[in-house]
Amino acid sequence: MKTIKTQVAIIGAGPSGLLLGQLLAKQGISNIILERVTGDYVLGRIRAGILEQGFADLVREAGVAERMDADGDVHDGFEISANGERYHIDLKGLTGGKTVVCYGQVEITQDLMDAREAAGLTTYYEAADVQPLNVKSDTPSVTFTHDGEQYELCCDYIAGCDGFHGVSRQTIPADKRTEFERVYPFGWLGLLSDTPPCNSELIYCKHERGFALASMRSETRSRYYLQVPLTDKVEDWSDEAFWEELKKRLPDDVAAGLVTGPSIEKSIAPLRSFVCEPMQYGRLFLVGDAAHIVPPTGAKGLNLAASDVATLYKIMTRVYKDNDPECISQYSDIALRRVWNGERFSWWMSNMLHNFGQMETGDMDAATFKRFMESELDYYLNSENGRRVIAEQYVGLPYEELAP
Amino acid sequence: MKTIKTQVAIIGAGPSGLLLGQLLAKQGISNIILERVTGDYVLGRIRAGILEQGFADLVREAGVAERMDADGDVHDGFEISANGERYHIDLKGLTGGKTVVCYGQVEITQDLMDAREAAGLTTYYEAADVQPLNVKSDTPSVTFTHDGEQYELCCDYIAGCDGFHGVSRQTIPADKRTEFERVYPFGWLGLLSDTPPCNSELIYCKHERGFALASMRSETRSRYYLQVPLTDKVEDWSDEAFWEELKKRLPDDVAAGLVTGPSIEKSIAPLRSFVCEPMQYGRLFLVGDAAHIVPPTGAKGLNLAASDVATLYKIMTRVYKDNDPECISQYSDIALRRVWNGERFSWWMSNMLHNFGQMETGDMDAATFKRFMESELDYYLNSENGRRVIAEQYVGLPYEELAP
Repeated sequence: MKTIKTQVAIIGAGPSGLLLGQLLAKQGISNIILERVTGDYVLGRIRAGILEQGFADLVREAGVAERMDADGDVHDGFEISANGERYHIDLKGLTGGKTVVCYGQVEITQDLMDAREAAGLTTYYEAADVQPLNVKSDTPSVTFTHDGEQYELCCDYIAGCDGFHGVSRQTIPADKRTEFERVYPFGWLGLLSDTPPCNSELIYCKHERGFALASMRSETRSRYYLQVPLTDKVEDWSDEAFWEELKKRLPDDVAAGLVTGPSIEKSIAPLRSFVCEPMQYGRLFLVGDAAHIVPPTGAKGLNLAASDVATLYKIMTRVYKDNDPECISQYSDIALRRVWNGERFSWWMSNMLHNFGQMETGDMDAATFKRFMESELDYYLNSENGRRVIAEQYVGLPYEELAP
Repeated sequence: MKTIKTQVAIIGAGPSGLLLGQLLAKQGISNIILERVTGDYVLGRIRAGILEQGFADLVREAGVAERMDADGDVHDGFEISANGERYHIDLKGLTGGKTVVCYGQVEITQDLMDAREAAGLTTYYEAADVQPLNVKSDTPSVTFTHDGEQYELCCDYIAGCDGFHGVSRQTIPADKRTEFERVYPFGWLGLLSDTPPCNSELIYCKHERGFALASMRSETRSRYYLQVPLTDKVEDWSDEAFWEELKKRLPDDVAAGLVTGPSIEKSIAPLRSFVCEPMQYGRLFLVGDAAHIVPPTGAKGLNLAASDVATLYKIMTRVYKDNDPECISQYSDIALRRVWNGERFSWWMSNMLHNFGQMETGDMDAATFKRFMESELDYYLNSENGRRVIAEQYVGLPYEELAP
């Protein structure tokens, strides 16, 4: 067993772990990242790429914003189409100047990996059997196997950035955590293609046939989604069938200008709302998907991970710079308040925009729920106050400061 | 069988029927009201009394506003208390000057009855066996029995203002209407007392022990409510027990100043969301509770009835003044859009403010729903945009105009 040491052990080299590592390093706080798979595998994950302004500012603070600021596309707004009628959500105008940046998660991850390598910071890719130990003591550690050798990484704190299926959340005993969940009776079928986007901004489409989303990665690469039954398989959907269905759900004028092409990637993802409380256990912190999952409606997943990183970064800085180890007890409450706001926003947007069909909804029938959601969309799209509420949450609520 | 004639037969002498009759009469449109019970019985119903500005304006248009404007208490705002913390919803400030009037439903009804009598308009109280007939023909009528005599009231149109249990909705064949419903797993226990209100504005209290509402009828008469299980009976609640429980749910400083006293009235009402579509069938129009019920959270019940009256009044005026009988087909869509907005607002306020306990919520557990609602209240109370959304709907969305 080889023993190595650092101040903060970070489990997971996704965007949260990498961003946290970069920010800590800038404050002179040492950190080592352990990642189960290869860097290429991490980069192979297709994910969304709408960054809240707070996230973009955090990437700038980490000093990794050069390519994002050059290539990222600032979006001043987005559209919601309700049964063919287009409504513009003017993010900039409705929020007093705030916007979002369209820049792929893969690109952010690549930038952060490059910066980490340039800074000479240590990452163990393909680390197997990763196991946090003694997290309730003052001397936690993480054991793992790498290149056939066993390691013990001794550290002060552990950041669990290892996603929904990672080991970190499981390290909190089952009777010390509460898990909240809501599942949805449908999934999203995504298609990536090297075609110009059908619109300069995202369009969230509510349609009787089911939800659709028109989004993009760049001026030449589009990403489209269709609500599909959970029983559908990717093989059921030819590219042709996908484009035909998409045209039916897009507003007519947009559908008329849609450029189609062969898919580069096509996959079905289920929708889930999930939160684990608390997000801290001893010296272990859960960050991002390790603690919470949102449905993609509203693009909050990566952004909630970023706000966890922002909070943990502030806390670690105070621990080491101000010698205030007590402040770690603030992490869970501060993180969870914003997490629940994002969960609620994503749940709400999902409820308003999808066709729930004959879903069981407890003591209310599906038809009544449908009417409530039609009225919800009617009100929020046609009221300026309603649009402000959508916009304020879409660009992201402010990051909360630590208590003194 | 005695035959009588009028232009518009109105079933029900509650506030909607009386207000409609008054407005029609002012336009020279003849109308007769049939009411199943006595006027005193109608006045004995204890109901809320928060009037939207649109409603107050309609009462003024009907020429019956003298006492309301003299004795009604204009409320510039109301409060929401979330687990003891008080938030002010500044209706006037957040809506650009709109307010609500606190004036009891009983008072409004009395004023309308007095005005109707003064104008010499016909009302048959204690009309039995009321039955609309031939509503799909051009010659509808309403038969009824009064003082032992049988009547046929021949008319052009019938306004069904006879409430949830009335005959009007049942006149639409079951296969020609759709009923939407949502029930709630609790009721409201109300207590009326001749004590000064604990606060100058209403306070809606969310509390772990259950919802409470502090409201008033005048400077010397208070009306309080407690969320109670549907299994509770009024006899289970002594006045003393009521006041003790109320004090626990009110904000501490308000509870400290609460003046208690013997109850004048005490009753338990279930909460229900209900809508019947369509609201027009041939020459029969459903108005108010005949077509829709809301839970009392947010004070929309009477106000939605008033907006139905406003729409039907505009339509009848156009029918008779502009000789445009086709415009009656607009009634249902116009009325329903605002009804669903009010239904949704009341459902939303109820969801946010009550304790749903272990209620079955379909594919989401009760604990997850509770967290969503805590976050909802957190966001909407702490965001100015959120408070604007509450205020805009509380003072009432604008009445929609008829299409040209």
